[in-house]
Amino acid sequence: MNNRGQLFGIGVGPGDPELLTLKALRLLKAAPVVAYFVAKGKKGNAFSIVESHLDGVQIRLPLVYPVTTEALEPPLSYETIIADFYDTAAAVIGEHLDAGRDVAVVCEGDPFFYGSYMYLHDRLAGQFRVEVVPGVCSMLGGTAVLGTPLVYRNQSLAILSGVMSEDELRSKLAQTDAAVIMKLGRNFAKVRRVLDELGLASRALYVERATMPNQRIVPLALVDPMASPYFSLLVVPGQKWQG
Amino acid sequence: MNNRGQLFGIGVGPGDPELLTLKALRLLKAAPVVAYFVAKGKKGNAFSIVESHLDGVQIRLPLVYPVTTEALEPPLSYETIIADFYDTAAAVIGEHLDAGRDVAVVCEGDPFFYGSYMYLHDRLAGQFRVEVVPGVCSMLGGTAVLGTPLVYRNQSLAILSGVMSEDELRSKLAQTDAAVIMKLGRNFAKVRRVLDELGLASRALYVERATMPNQRIVPLALVDPMASPYFSLLVVPGQKWQG
Ligand SMILES: C[S@@+](CC[C@H](N)C(=O)[O-])C[C@H]1O[C@@H](n2cnc3c(N)ncnc32)[C@H](O)[C@@H]1O
Ligand SMILES: C[S@@+](CC[C@H](N)C(=O)[O-])C[C@H]1O[C@@H](n2cnc3c(N)ncnc32)[C@H](O)[C@@H]1O
Repeated sequence: MNNRGQLFGIGVGPGDPELLTLKALRLLKAAPVVAYFVAKGKKGNAFSIVESHLDGVQIRLPLVYPVTTEALEPPLSYETIIADFYDTAAAVIGEHLDAGRDVAVVCEGDPFFYGSYMYLHDRLAGQFRVEVVPGVCSMLGGTAVLGTPLVYRNQSLAILSGVMSEDELRSKLAQTDAAVIMKLGRNFAKVRRVLDELGLASRALYVERATMPNQRIVPLALVDPMASPYFSLLVVPGQKWQG
Repeated sequence: MNNRGQLFGIGVGPGDPELLTLKALRLLKAAPVVAYFVAKGKKGNAFSIVESHLDGVQIRLPLVYPVTTEALEPPLSYETIIADFYDTAAAVIGEHLDAGRDVAVVCEGDPFFYGSYMYLHDRLAGQFRVEVVPGVCSMLGGTAVLGTPLVYRNQSLAILSGVMSEDELRSKLAQTDAAVIMKLGRNFAKVRRVLDELGLASRALYVERATMPNQRIVPLALVDPMASPYFSLLVVPGQKWQG
């Protein structure tokens, strides 16, 4: 057991490489194997963030998603395909760990905040020594560049997904003091409709690729619902508390 | 205007000084004035996190809270006292900025996530150039050390305060997939009662001073409700998604 490698789930922040923590950087440089999730044909967002810190000896282990959309036609099932993919990825990482090599999985934002790393963690944490290094999540990268305090004092904050049904979004937004909505993309039009209905649109702020070089802050009314990218989020800040 | 200093709201993470970002460290070292909130007679949590990085020339500006509790007897009013305090703190910082000195306000966790910095920001951002550096928030420091994925896929996450009424806690917890409850302390017994009622207690995890040297992880049933410190939080993770 003691000769086996250790697994690290490392949050690398929302995009700006300077938002890496000192701990993430130290562990990353020391890891013989650096694994990262990536879409077919892409470079990988988390990998791009850390690339400049890696040397030529470290093993780079891309974990390439087998599908790029969750909307598949039967008999294909996203759930089955993605579960098989995580099984295989965990097995490959497990082989490195068994061989005594530490593996750092780099994760955009924070590993435990909607991160794909969680599916590896759930498969491997029972068998290997694991450490998770928290990161700056996209929500807080977003509020920093928007320049808006997110939530005051004893207000409640709801973090929601644009994938939710219109009804669920409506009822959750109606009951919270502040909200962040992730996974917009093709869900943008639906989300904006709900914000309009609830009279929240004037408070909502929108950002694409927060802290990345191609960051864009766009007033809600001017967002093209057909062109909202995956890396975007909406913030409905809590009402200012005078303090 | 251009000779005036710039204000920085700098997140320094949940406690472990290694969870500072590279950007926070760079700006902190460059700041002629480093301001921090602190309770009377205490050293200040955010200040302790960064102290080793400061040199002898940098001006240290403690902003000492005038009260240590929100529960004051009339004619005293927490709201009035604290508003005056933030007004004065903002004025003192404004003088440094007017004199051309940049001021870095260091903030535990993230500045815009329930941070006192927000009250300075709301007073100063209209008059001075301001930049906020996001940090690792206590919620994610907490889940990392608890080793629990927080929220999967399209689940909703509610961030709540122990100060909320029992009814509000109950209704918000009943409707979310995952939750984090902050500001426990004397509210701990109430919060545990609600978790018990809703059948959530078995899923809940508790941590004190996450990532700090005196961190404690305690099973919920063993927490002494009279001794839960201010720096503690509860996590009800989302149900595992098999992925
Ligand atoms: C699978 S989640 C990953 C979240 C990540 N683990 C984190 O801690 O932020 C992907 C979603 O995060 C949000 N996101 C991630 N990075 C972002 C960025 N730089 N700017 C805006 N949104 C971002 C988007 O809403 C996107 O749909
Ligand atoms: C005024 S809020 C400040 C939150 C901070 N700005 C952040 O980003 O986490 C204070 C609350 O944060 C939580 N907290 C802050 N640091 C913590 C830590 N190291 N461990 C556990 N809880 C912490 C506690 O619930 C505490 O009552």
